[in-house]
Amino acid sequence: MSLTSVGVELHCRCIMTERRPIGRHIEKVEIIPGSSHCEETEIIATLKKTGKEVCLDPEAPWVKIVINRILSNRRR
Amino acid sequence: MSLTSVGVELHCRCIMTERRPIGRHIEKVEIIPGSSHCEETEIIATLKKTGKEVCLDPEAPWVKIVINRILSNRRR
Repeated sequence: MSLTSVGVELHCRCIMTERRPIGRHIEKVEIIPGSSHCEETEIIATLKKTGKEVCLDPEAPWVKIVINRILSNRRR
Repeated sequence: MSLTSVGVELHCRCIMTERRPIGRHIEKVEIIPGSSHCEETEIIATLKKTGKEVCLDPEAPWVKIVINRILSNRRR
């Protein structure tokens, strides 16, 4: 749920991930593949209304479902 | 492949989408669900090295494969 500021990051941005299924509140999702800067794939969702950024767990089934639902262009 | 500047957009950002499978060159991916501002789901990839932003087709099979590969945390 916590992350550092934006820009080119040379380390992992996510410290905690959101456990609650917040798919309906997502304005956009940023997916950052693992790299030499951060081994883990990081998923950062920006929430509607608040614009708050929260980290999601790439391994949580609901996260994969939400992302694939968005890719299928089913309306939020 | 073209898109407008960043920020809170009140319209679609993608005009054209990249047809070539550029999965290996992706630094990060931004997924924006369809909304009242833009009906279509938009996927904007930032490329490694150049930092260039390109739009991807949410319906292209290779795009779904690349995103799901990233979610599975298989190293790029």
